Amino acid sequence: MIGIFDSGLGGLTAVAELRKALPNADYVYFGDTARIPYGTRSVETIRSYALQDCRFLMSMGVTSILAACGTVSTNALDTLRASFNVPIVGVVEGAAKKAAQIAKNGRGKVLVLGTPATIKSGAFEKALNKNGCRDVISVACPMFVPLAENGYTSVNQIPALEIAREYLAPVADTCPDAVILGCTHYPLLSEVISYFLPHSALVSSGAEAVSELKDMLISSHRDINGGGKGKYYVSDGVESFSKSAHRFLQAPVSDVTVVDINSY
Amino acid sequence: MIGIFDSGLGGLTAVAELRKALPNADYVYFGDTARIPYGTRSVETIRSYALQDCRFLMSMGVTSILAACGTVSTNALDTLRASFNVPIVGVVEGAAKKAAQIAKNGRGKVLVLGTPATIKSGAFEKALNKNGCRDVISVACPMFVPLAENGYTSVNQIPALEIAREYLAPVADTCPDAVILGCTHYPLLSEVISYFLPHSALVSSGAEAVSELKDMLISSHRDINGGGKGKYYVSDGVESFSKSAHRFLQAPVSDVTVVDINSY
Repeated sequence: MIGIFDSGLGGLTAVAELRKALPNADYVYFGDTARIPYGTRSVETIRSYALQDCRFLMSMGVTSILAACGTVSTNALDTLRASFNVPIVGVVEGAAKKAAQIAKNGRGKVLVLGTPATIKSGAFEKALNKNGCRDVISVACPMFVPLAENGYTSVNQIPALEIAREYLAPVADTCPDAVILGCTHYPLLSEVISYFLPHSALVSSGAEAVSELKDMLISSHRDINGGGKGKYYVSDGVESFSKSAHRFLQAPVSDVTVVDINSY
Repeated sequence: MIGIFDSGLGGLTAVAELRKALPNADYVYFGDTARIPYGTRSVETIRSYALQDCRFLMSMGVTSILAACGTVSTNALDTLRASFNVPIVGVVEGAAKKAAQIAKNGRGKVLVLGTPATIKSGAFEKALNKNGCRDVISVACPMFVPLAENGYTSVNQIPALEIAREYLAPVADTCPDAVILGCTHYPLLSEVISYFLPHSALVSSGAEAVSELKDMLISSHRDINGGGKGKYYVSDGVESFSKSAHRFLQAPVSDVTVVDINSY
């Protein structure tokens, strides 16, 4: 069984990809809705929260983990890999590889968008460099998570458009070949991001991570032939999760349970 | 010693008032920066967080507590009062009394602005009714906390102006006599709120709570004659707290310590 977690709803965009890529795989999703957002917190807090999240998933019997959260993937992946004896895939490597490919095999330009903690970590930049890509610009977008969580995702909504303008207009004329959506909330803002970067290819870090996970699971003959069942766990109210989850998952969500994450 | 707490930085607007009202009182402030925001979480989670916050303050030897958080005051005050043997003042009663006075001693109209959890609780409405005020409109403003925390507080910043327009324009023509700022973050947005409600008096729930606390302390001869020293504790990084705190406190902040709030 695959374990997937995120600070909240964003990771559901990766679950949507997982359900397409591996329709028979069983999975458990955990959204830390009692402590979202992660991206504006300190590295120590992000690591401590991510450890609890994975301890919960391990207690459910998962045999692989997808850290479907850009902030965790860029600040806590080494900590997690040193702590748990199952393969753990983050959202950095796959997206960096794909973006470098799109950017003329590394000779072009890549823009990385992420939470403040993600951008501060420099993790996407390092991964892009490793893939031969040197021309990298990074922009922290602290308001994108609150916008996405509160339903501001369209160019017709002035707050979404104007906050995106503030982040993206200063870098738009560099015309990046690829834009890494370094937070799994950001695919919801694709329309707004493309409005300012119409000629750039958007790379969903969650979707690329699913593709990496799929290759890994197939080559190790694991996890992919179940009934395609998903269970959802959250650390805060089921009601508000269920109300918004379908926008991220692009499907209805059922079987949601509350977990006391502090006890893990 | 007075204990004051909030989900994050907002309660510092009440500390600013406290320092004016009781310049010799010693106080301990706790900001739950590792778990902010509270206002979009469930009642159960808000109560459990507020209990931990107060357990920490009690461990510091406080003899009175100001719940300088609208969400806690409207969802967890009874729980706190039943759990701790010191007087606990919230931000509802004082603001309701003051707003009712301004609104023609209850015959006028009052607008309550708060987090989703605060508005859902109906607590300000009940307190206003008790003060004879029946004509009450309530509006949940889920984006005001992220705006204030991220520095969007001026009418010259389009995201602040447009989100305020969305919340306030539909009720502006009711011309309320008083507007209760039911969250201690909202005084930072006073300029933006007054832009849409130029003829309404803004009532700061934090400032009114301090006034209520002061009366209570003076009448019970407690807590007010120390050296006027403040200590600040947060559950997440000191650095980011210190960087933003002065905007809320209107003074520099020193002596900040990190606390592991989950151990309380």
